[in-house]
Amino acid sequence: MTNSTDTLDRLAAVIESRKPANGGDPEKSYVARLLHKGPDAFLKKVAEEAGETVMAAKDLQYGAGDAKALVGEVADLWFHSMITLAHFGLSPADVVAELARREGLSGLEEKALRKAQAREQGE
Amino acid sequence: MTNSTDTLDRLAAVIESRKPANGGDPEKSYVARLLHKGPDAFLKKVAEEAGETVMAAKDLQYGAGDAKALVGEVADLWFHSMITLAHFGLSPADVVAELARREGLSGLEEKALRKAQAREQGE
Amino acid sequence: MTNSTDTLDRLAAVIESRKPANGGDPEKSYVARLLHKGPDAFLKKVAEEAGETVMAAKDLQYGAGDAKALVGEVADLWFHSMITLAHFGLSPADVVAELARREGLSGLEEKALRKAQAREQGE
Amino acid sequence: MTNSTDTLDRLAAVIESRKPANGGDPEKSYVARLLHKGPDAFLKKVAEEAGETVMAAKDLQYGAGDAKALVGEVADLWFHSMITLAHFGLSPADVVAELARREGLSGLEEKALRKAQAREQGE
Repeated sequence: MTNSTDTLDRLAAVIESRKPANGGDPEKSYVARLLHKGPDAFLKKVAEEAGETVMAAKDLQYGAGDAKALVGEVADLWFHSMITLAHFGLSPADVVAELARREGLSGLEEKALRKAQAREQGE
Repeated sequence: MTNSTDTLDRLAAVIESRKPANGGDPEKSYVARLLHKGPDAFLKKVAEEAGETVMAAKDLQYGAGDAKALVGEVADLWFHSMITLAHFGLSPADVVAELARREGLSGLEEKALRKAQAREQGE
Repeated sequence: MTNSTDTLDRLAAVIESRKPANGGDPEKSYVARLLHKGPDAFLKKVAEEAGETVMAAKDLQYGAGDAKALVGEVADLWFHSMITLAHFGLSPADVVAELARREGLSGLEEKALRKAQAREQGE
Repeated sequence: MTNSTDTLDRLAAVIESRKPANGGDPEKSYVARLLHKGPDAFLKKVAEEAGETVMAAKDLQYGAGDAKALVGEVADLWFHSMITLAHFGLSPADVVAELARREGLSGLEEKALRKAQAREQGE
């Protein structure tokens, strides 16, 4: 069975191979094209896909739209995040390690909660 | 060795257990609190963390900031995306499956490229 | 001398005239086209232009980019906000009135400050 | 009668007076506090308020929420845009001038339309 690691790692490897330094061709590959254009090209997509994720979720909230649309927008958001990571020499494994670290830290959620409660008083 | 699947799936299970219907306590858990408040609470965080991802990346672009900050912002972005997915009965596995589907579709990147090139003419 | 009110009001009137109900033609006008496509079309632009405003500001922060680029992005952001307002029967005058109301309320900034300080403790 | 120019210009003058260099006190003023903290503090708000504008608009689209909420979010978005402009020595008058310039350019909307149509083919 193919698991998520395999998928994210494989996808990260594909993105890596699209870097200009690794021979990625901006005329043949969408990822190579974004990496060639530089940060603003893929960061603009991160902002845009976050907005589309919010819209797809609001549609679902009101019983319109469909679950598939939300999954597609989150996939776009994560995909362009991975291109951003790759450009700066980072990978999804770094993000997953950070998520694992947080999950493993007992008391972490309690700390986030206290912060959120303080923020709420401030809203 | 703990792999990414384990981490994302485990994190998804923790989020699931924080749902009000599963006994999550908004007074004790940050995730339960967001899920209890409803979509706008976590969608606002998705928009905010996307903005912070963009800022952390721009800092790195100019040789300021540090890689750890960018990893932390992307982790925040993915984490709040996962809370969004959970609220609508979805999971990171759905997103990873969609990413795998795209990676597996030959010609997909070429299609995205043609679209991007058409867009560029329109910019 | 042409003042800002004239400009914003005139621009709002142009947008109003582009509504499908007022004969705006999606084949001839960019604004008519967005209004015809509906909320997601212009809301996506609001999210995108906010991201571009952030990027242009970060460029300036590091002594790159230019002031004109930031002004252009904020203009795009305000323009697509105005299309959003028009779609829902609102106008920039409503926004300016709300800003005036806030400015006129003594103690308002103090309240915002207390909230921000509480949030900071929560960050 | 108080017009929009007066309001935007007056608000810009208030923001200007809150700059650290002009004696703005971060302990007493919300705007002084943001300007003192620097770009990331107010840019984060620009991203966040854009997200909240999108959410308020989606609520209205589905007959929930209210017009006042959308006006309030757009006011927040424009207000934090103005703080951003002030930090970089710019003003809402610059943005309004850019909007006027565009409105005055005949053929401008046609150009934007052709671009949008090309983008659409690319979507």
